[in-house]
Amino acid sequence: MSDLLRVAVVGAGYWGPNLARTFKASGDCELAVICDLDVSKAQRVADRIGGAPVTADLAAVLHDPTIDAVAIATPARTHHPIVMASLRAGKHVMVEKPLADTRERGLEMVELARHQGLVLMADHTYCYTPAVLKIRDLIAEGELGDILFVDSVRINLGLIQPDVDVFWDLAPHDLSIMDFVLPGGLAATSVSAHGSDPLGTGKSCVGYLAMPLECGAMAHIHVNWLSPTKIRQMVIGGTKRTLVWDDLNPQQRLSVYDRGVDIAAVSKATAADARAAHISYRLGDTWAPALPEREALAGVVAELAASVRERRAPRTSGESGLLVLAVLEAATASLAVAGAPLPVTHHTLEEGFVR
Amino acid sequence: MSDLLRVAVVGAGYWGPNLARTFKASGDCELAVICDLDVSKAQRVADRIGGAPVTADLAAVLHDPTIDAVAIATPARTHHPIVMASLRAGKHVMVEKPLADTRERGLEMVELARHQGLVLMADHTYCYTPAVLKIRDLIAEGELGDILFVDSVRINLGLIQPDVDVFWDLAPHDLSIMDFVLPGGLAATSVSAHGSDPLGTGKSCVGYLAMPLECGAMAHIHVNWLSPTKIRQMVIGGTKRTLVWDDLNPQQRLSVYDRGVDIAAVSKATAADARAAHISYRLGDTWAPALPEREALAGVVAELAASVRERRAPRTSGESGLLVLAVLEAATASLAVAGAPLPVTHHTLEEGFVR
Amino acid sequence: MSDLLRVAVVGAGYWGPNLARTFKASGDCELAVICDLDVSKAQRVADRIGGAPVTADLAAVLHDPTIDAVAIATPARTHHPIVMASLRAGKHVMVEKPLADTRERGLEMVELARHQGLVLMADHTYCYTPAVLKIRDLIAEGELGDILFVDSVRINLGLIQPDVDVFWDLAPHDLSIMDFVLPGGLAATSVSAHGSDPLGTGKSCVGYLAMPLECGAMAHIHVNWLSPTKIRQMVIGGTKRTLVWDDLNPQQRLSVYDRGVDIAAVSKATAADARAAHISYRLGDTWAPALPEREALAGVVAELAASVRERRAPRTSGESGLLVLAVLEAATASLAVAGAPLPVTHHTLEEGFVR
Amino acid sequence: MSDLLRVAVVGAGYWGPNLARTFKASGDCELAVICDLDVSKAQRVADRIGGAPVTADLAAVLHDPTIDAVAIATPARTHHPIVMASLRAGKHVMVEKPLADTRERGLEMVELARHQGLVLMADHTYCYTPAVLKIRDLIAEGELGDILFVDSVRINLGLIQPDVDVFWDLAPHDLSIMDFVLPGGLAATSVSAHGSDPLGTGKSCVGYLAMPLECGAMAHIHVNWLSPTKIRQMVIGGTKRTLVWDDLNPQQRLSVYDRGVDIAAVSKATAADARAAHISYRLGDTWAPALPEREALAGVVAELAASVRERRAPRTSGESGLLVLAVLEAATASLAVAGAPLPVTHHTLEEGFVR
Repeated sequence: MSDLLRVAVVGAGYWGPNLARTFKASGDCELAVICDLDVSKAQRVADRIGGAPVTADLAAVLHDPTIDAVAIATPARTHHPIVMASLRAGKHVMVEKPLADTRERGLEMVELARHQGLVLMADHTYCYTPAVLKIRDLIAEGELGDILFVDSVRINLGLIQPDVDVFWDLAPHDLSIMDFVLPGGLAATSVSAHGSDPLGTGKSCVGYLAMPLECGAMAHIHVNWLSPTKIRQMVIGGTKRTLVWDDLNPQQRLSVYDRGVDIAAVSKATAADARAAHISYRLGDTWAPALPEREALAGVVAELAASVRERRAPRTSGESGLLVLAVLEAATASLAVAGAPLPVTHHTLEEGFVR
Repeated sequence: MSDLLRVAVVGAGYWGPNLARTFKASGDCELAVICDLDVSKAQRVADRIGGAPVTADLAAVLHDPTIDAVAIATPARTHHPIVMASLRAGKHVMVEKPLADTRERGLEMVELARHQGLVLMADHTYCYTPAVLKIRDLIAEGELGDILFVDSVRINLGLIQPDVDVFWDLAPHDLSIMDFVLPGGLAATSVSAHGSDPLGTGKSCVGYLAMPLECGAMAHIHVNWLSPTKIRQMVIGGTKRTLVWDDLNPQQRLSVYDRGVDIAAVSKATAADARAAHISYRLGDTWAPALPEREALAGVVAELAASVRERRAPRTSGESGLLVLAVLEAATASLAVAGAPLPVTHHTLEEGFVR
Repeated sequence: MSDLLRVAVVGAGYWGPNLARTFKASGDCELAVICDLDVSKAQRVADRIGGAPVTADLAAVLHDPTIDAVAIATPARTHHPIVMASLRAGKHVMVEKPLADTRERGLEMVELARHQGLVLMADHTYCYTPAVLKIRDLIAEGELGDILFVDSVRINLGLIQPDVDVFWDLAPHDLSIMDFVLPGGLAATSVSAHGSDPLGTGKSCVGYLAMPLECGAMAHIHVNWLSPTKIRQMVIGGTKRTLVWDDLNPQQRLSVYDRGVDIAAVSKATAADARAAHISYRLGDTWAPALPEREALAGVVAELAASVRERRAPRTSGESGLLVLAVLEAATASLAVAGAPLPVTHHTLEEGFVR
Repeated sequence: MSDLLRVAVVGAGYWGPNLARTFKASGDCELAVICDLDVSKAQRVADRIGGAPVTADLAAVLHDPTIDAVAIATPARTHHPIVMASLRAGKHVMVEKPLADTRERGLEMVELARHQGLVLMADHTYCYTPAVLKIRDLIAEGELGDILFVDSVRINLGLIQPDVDVFWDLAPHDLSIMDFVLPGGLAATSVSAHGSDPLGTGKSCVGYLAMPLECGAMAHIHVNWLSPTKIRQMVIGGTKRTLVWDDLNPQQRLSVYDRGVDIAAVSKATAADARAAHISYRLGDTWAPALPEREALAGVVAELAASVRERRAPRTSGESGLLVLAVLEAATASLAVAGAPLPVTHHTLEEGFVR
């Protein structure tokens, strides 16, 4: 028996080869097998990474007692049955985004993992990039102060997906990142979604999500498949400093601005006019932290191994994947009522656990 | 009697001096007098521009039969009484944004001007910049095709205004520009406003406006007083091309992208899957039209003179100022119901005119 | 016998694997063998690309009558013996930049290829990028008019090479591109090189090359290993338009500016003062041509096959590689005399051919 | 008698009005008179700034014992006679760039001022911008370490001047700034100038200046009237950090990069190969210092007053203006010998003073 986590990769399509390559190269894991219904696809992946066992028989994989964990990169609608079977077979599970195709199914997966005492990890790869890890640290260390607003723009000329709208296609990135970096996670009190399908494709191609947070901040996401220019920018405003993450500027991805508005604490009785007298402005330096060159997916794999080893929830847990689904479902419902704000179904005690 | 339009400037505060200077330099107008309750302020302005009559007596200005028009740059809450008095005195009127402090009062002004057969012009200065004039022309000439979406971002570290929120402070620019450049004006079917006051200033400092348009496009505005970086960008997507206006890039303010998604016309009966087969992508050239160097305010003054001379509505009419008020009032109401979409009160026949 | 060009890749170090992969994927060529003194390196490359014969025996490769061409990616100092042997064995040759480590040796290679009637191609990969191909076409079609100046900046924090200075490391890119896109090639009448070794590394780390061209234009190159920011920009000014190539801006790599100075043709007798009256300025549109997504190295391989098939000089010929060496040797000599301008040794008839 | 420095402004053309306005607004100076041969031009300036005495009689100005200093903004060829007369009349002098039209005449001015014990100040306005003042401070405080290279680019579509080439038109800015910020001033050991006149205007329109400095660093300037894009960028590399000044990026004018190459000190005996082992790379944070909003010309005026009051050389002294002339004359001479490096005539003891 090995000390390494023995992992089976299920699915040899778009993302599976990256998982296979990374598990193969990992010092924490051993790539046990690549499984795909089309075994020739699995074999091609194995060839490209210098060899690995392959199979088309998922049941055999799940019955193999030497396999500790299953990494699933199959289409979203197949996540639920494969994850449930894997958990029932006693395997730890990592699954691509989105966790499932409905919140209900995602919830079943989370509850089963919890019941079985197994790790269920969402592969929110972006969260393991040097930029996002740094943002999380800066916020945790209090560098930004209390969070005032989060504004994310993710737009480009994108493929119009056959089965999902622009919210389900692009917003999971922003939602999982916000849940990862914000101190209490993405605690949205409601979601308003405004979408537009100006080309008549049958689904939103331009979308906006407004999410007031419990802390009083506003989170907002703009996703767009029709923009000729590509923008990947998130601004996180805080009482002390404001951070801008421009992912398309490799020379200065993160900028931390020591600029903002200061408001001296005033008693609630004070009139608004008096309050004005207590406003001042800071125009300080800007600082761009150096970021290490590190592959995000290697961090994903290391976190899976560490969470299994340490018997703890992974940093991008099934619950965070579930929250993304909850927000997206609320967004879809809000779209159907012309953008009226709708509550996000958070996990409750009745469902067996607290976030 | 002169062929020039004789104009009185009322208000010698922030904007009045610019008006006075521009009327003085205009070949179409004659600066008749600068009027301010504090006549010493009026005098200082007159001195700086090489001399002009000054007065503190507005009534005398309005009774002066040699004065053709009044340009009003006083605080918003005073617009209504001054405009109404001016129109009653038979003067043409130009007034700073916002037209009035409520839609109701703005409507009275528009109706009185119409009844009197006088010009009522909104000084939407931005609309007379070379960039916006070019955008209007490009859209009118069909260069963009049908409009699919309009997305405007106007954010910076801004003064927290004592009496208005970020919507009323910044969005009038975007709204008046959209009304100016879109073929049918800003025909919003509803407005959803999402605001946030994370510093407890008593008013929104971060705001989002989502406005579905009658043509099926979505218009959206992001305004923000708390952003450490300054962005002034509007993207107008069309079926043929998409335009990006980056007002802070003097080397390339306008870019027209021949990129986008083409959808072959399909019958309504066609299933969504079939439709996917008809989607194609264009990745053509980008084109940045040269813009003349021209002062916007000189264009404003020329338009006032021309509209009086030609007895026609100015390109930025009282009605367009009224529409801005209607959207802002709907936004304020939407804010009060957590962003639920509310209709915009458009002018109706009962109100005596059609846009 | 195959219709495909059968190519041996010699050298399995940094660049050889890219060549091997591209030849393997090419529809024009067949990868015959990968040859490296360390056959295990060759084998690793073969494995990664899905298999290929390997060998450590270069002589056997050159004696193999089924092999048509040799692509050489070994250290620069080994180019001369391997190329000469390959040509003597009747093989067409493609060789990495720089062609050789001295101009003298490069000249021998060029002359032998010419004598043998074989193709000798310089792998100036940059010349086959969509941006450079487009630049060449635009200039050839007269879009820029006559060339007035060429200014190239290639700076970043770079590895201080053990055996070459910043000129020999970086400038070959700029020189080969200039030679490729300029109508008559890089016809430099002299070279002045200014270098600086402020860290005492024993070689220039900051360098400038000024090269007056026969047509009256000035070509200039700035190379720098010590710059914290990365710049890859070439400006090519013409009488009609000016082109800016910013290789680090994937959203707008090429911009063609219809801006410039026009001088009405005046007789030689006209005094300079009179001439001033004939100067006018154009401030026209900017245009950014769309560029196809295409891998440069595939273009290199296709050109090798085509030049052999069509018995013609390749677009990046041995002669162009030789010119790069001639300029670099002149630069090294100029450095030794504090930047005084020195002539470039161009190929002459006595040397057996004309460019 | 006033404690304020009473200043006469001579010349009411392009720059004089700015001087007059700034002296008028200064708390340190009193605008005594505006003097221009065309007294109506002087009057127009006086009117625009709220009034000031005017005259066409320079002799009377120089004989007026209540006038302490003369600020000269006349054409360059007139600087010498006016400055000499002013100094002879016992007035302190500030003069526009260039100090004079030849180095010889500039030297006479410097020597006379020194002999008379009067202040002779060069109005190198750029040196008083917040960015340049900050650069000077950062270098003086050792933030950059020892200087390794200075590279300045100042290019745009510029007016082709009737009487000067691009070096004399644009390079004085870069030269005076370098002299201002470098610890020992711009101690160039030689100058190589490469110019090009591709349009046949009779003077260089594209120019490069290479200047090895005594400290071993290289200073380089690129000036260009024919560039369609505008660039104003100076990079100052140091052993500890490197600074980039991008004057056209108001959101981040200065960036200080903690990136670079470190070389462990090795004995002179060590071979170059061994040295390679001692090279390491730093990839640290970037820092953009906040800059105050301050008008440069107000700083110029304050410095004139302070240097007179404190009987000291101004920070931009006549000597620095003289150095600019010395470099430009060497550049002109170098141009005449095809860019061969020529020495800069520095001030020597024989000339009566040491810098």
